[in-house]
Amino acid sequence: MSIKYADRMDNLKASEIRELLKLTERPEVISFAGGLPAPELFPIEEMKKVSVKVLEDMGKEALQYSATEGYKPLREKIVKRMKKVEIETTADEILITSGSQQGLDFCGKVFLNPDDVVIVESPSYLGAINAFKAYQCKFVEVPTDDHGMIMSELDRILAATENVKFIYVIPDFQNPTGRTWPVDRRKEFIKIANKYDIPVVEDNPYGELRFEGEIPPSLKSFDEDGRVIFLGTFSKTFTPGLRMGWVNAREDILEKFILVKQSADLQTNSMTQRELSVYMDMYDFDAHIEKIKDAYRKRRDIMMKTMEETFPENVHWTYPEGGLFTWVVFPEHINSRELMAEAIKKNVACVPGGSFFPNGGHENAIRVNYSNMPEDKIVEGIKRLAEVIKEAL
Amino acid sequence: MSIKYADRMDNLKASEIRELLKLTERPEVISFAGGLPAPELFPIEEMKKVSVKVLEDMGKEALQYSATEGYKPLREKIVKRMKKVEIETTADEILITSGSQQGLDFCGKVFLNPDDVVIVESPSYLGAINAFKAYQCKFVEVPTDDHGMIMSELDRILAATENVKFIYVIPDFQNPTGRTWPVDRRKEFIKIANKYDIPVVEDNPYGELRFEGEIPPSLKSFDEDGRVIFLGTFSKTFTPGLRMGWVNAREDILEKFILVKQSADLQTNSMTQRELSVYMDMYDFDAHIEKIKDAYRKRRDIMMKTMEETFPENVHWTYPEGGLFTWVVFPEHINSRELMAEAIKKNVACVPGGSFFPNGGHENAIRVNYSNMPEDKIVEGIKRLAEVIKEAL
Repeated sequence: MSIKYADRMDNLKASEIRELLKLTERPEVISFAGGLPAPELFPIEEMKKVSVKVLEDMGKEALQYSATEGYKPLREKIVKRMKKVEIETTADEILITSGSQQGLDFCGKVFLNPDDVVIVESPSYLGAINAFKAYQCKFVEVPTDDHGMIMSELDRILAATENVKFIYVIPDFQNPTGRTWPVDRRKEFIKIANKYDIPVVEDNPYGELRFEGEIPPSLKSFDEDGRVIFLGTFSKTFTPGLRMGWVNAREDILEKFILVKQSADLQTNSMTQRELSVYMDMYDFDAHIEKIKDAYRKRRDIMMKTMEETFPENVHWTYPEGGLFTWVVFPEHINSRELMAEAIKKNVACVPGGSFFPNGGHENAIRVNYSNMPEDKIVEGIKRLAEVIKEAL
Repeated sequence: MSIKYADRMDNLKASEIRELLKLTERPEVISFAGGLPAPELFPIEEMKKVSVKVLEDMGKEALQYSATEGYKPLREKIVKRMKKVEIETTADEILITSGSQQGLDFCGKVFLNPDDVVIVESPSYLGAINAFKAYQCKFVEVPTDDHGMIMSELDRILAATENVKFIYVIPDFQNPTGRTWPVDRRKEFIKIANKYDIPVVEDNPYGELRFEGEIPPSLKSFDEDGRVIFLGTFSKTFTPGLRMGWVNAREDILEKFILVKQSADLQTNSMTQRELSVYMDMYDFDAHIEKIKDAYRKRRDIMMKTMEETFPENVHWTYPEGGLFTWVVFPEHINSRELMAEAIKKNVACVPGGSFFPNGGHENAIRVNYSNMPEDKIVEGIKRLAEVIKEAL
């Protein structure tokens, strides 16, 4: 049979991370490759009670079709939680999605015609790049420094670029770099977005996992026009397997996302939405986040310390104040794909940084995750990685 | 702010059914409008035990990220169940989706460029039409009779139509008509699809809910080229709120669907997949389906009998041997949208048939659901509907 797929399929390739993660499934591999939360912190006992309670109190509803926009009590709880990033909103501005990956896909579907431009940080999140690529867009990358996107560069690029549909950014503990934008840069960003009248997608999966200092106000908190579409998720603060995320946007924009949700999968799992809502009624969600933060802080600290002790001098890495990742940059002549091929032979894995640059050309960095491995394995894995790096230099 | 949405958004409008369902939420309304299963048959007590068992036996996995293609034991159970429609397949040809609506969306995303043609039965399922529309395709409708799509018409249309990307059909208890294709027509269909070398999407959400006679072999069972992509779901045989469906396709085609799944939402809910699989281990799934069939058979019978007793002579309806719907056709001068506006005043609701014709122009029919209302309400609702029809004639 001769099959003609849609043109967009030429842009979709198997995620390098996904292929890599298959290699790392061997138990002897110390993997810093994925973005996996620590499963020993999942609230398994609590979820048993929650599941039974949902089925007892509202079993018929929990198993039936339900509203496309999502379970209202859960949307109302999200509204309250949004105050942490200084966003004032209402349940009518919240759509429950199957993880924030679905929110990313919907941003592409709602906004992008072929050849439209998406502005991203350089580097940016691979899952977002792939989601948008499926809509045949182009990417323009804005240079970044240790404090995130460089605003003068953004201004310059927007002045020179046509057909920009939106700017996609992760201002808090960015994936892959672990960097956070300071408040003044956030304010300036919104001024520039206003000046060029461009919508913004603010992705914030890690912001609540802050190990030190105060949570800064979101970009959306400075947005008076409703131009910022905020994507949230419970994957990192609760569990990723339940696929619970949300989109927060001005009502007329959200209406487009709801239409897209309806044709994409009708609605998010009715039972899981109720479980999450009932969990928040029965237990202290913030106390649960504190437990996660305590564990990850220790893991970050031991990773930073071991890198300090073992990595050669001309290797640099970010110090993340929260989130899941650090970003290690090598001298330019190092190809991290080759480096990672050597590392996997020593049973340690990270993600080569090249994948995070949509237009390619930066092969001398790696993304290193610290949330998923216990402390002793972090020490051992970083030591092995140091050996591989020294051999390559 | 000036917002420029993607061109595809011009094609997406709020589903008429969704808007209608909001009206029918008032408890005094007897609704035949939705396609909702009977919630009193949901296995609530069993699900309590299943949820606890999944969390006890594999809590960490159930709450963690997992494979994009889905939980292997569930995919293997689906492989066994596919034998009911005479499909021999393997777990490598199964992708778990968030309901079969997601399978429909993915068919659009994998195959359709703007202006490509999708061939459908006339009428066809509204949710599929909307999913494909989002990819800016055109529809060509093939005339149908009491036994489904008319094969000579399909042959004639394929001979005359360019850019056909796939044929979308629901051969078993079709939505909206309730009609089923006989076996000889299925064989002829595959011959014609082979002759023109066109991929086929076979949607079978209701086939297992057969009240009488034998389940016929699927289209895919006659397909020797791997041209048929089969969509299945547990929404009607188990529960819709859990959003569990699947795509069964030749491995090279399925690989495209897996790529699309990855960028769309990474994976289907890890916990729910395990719950469904463990349910099948702990309980007799086929016995559960028998219970549903017994209930729906009685509801169909009482609806058919009441229509026979109360509907005027020049009104015709299908006798469905299974599934959820019957299709009522009025004389051509009757506009069913107006009819339904009158019906809702009498607190009874059905879906006007016009929505199911992607190119419009057929307003003299309604879709009537019998699975969701108890028998006494079916009798009362059909009597009220008969009054409204008599007044309009």
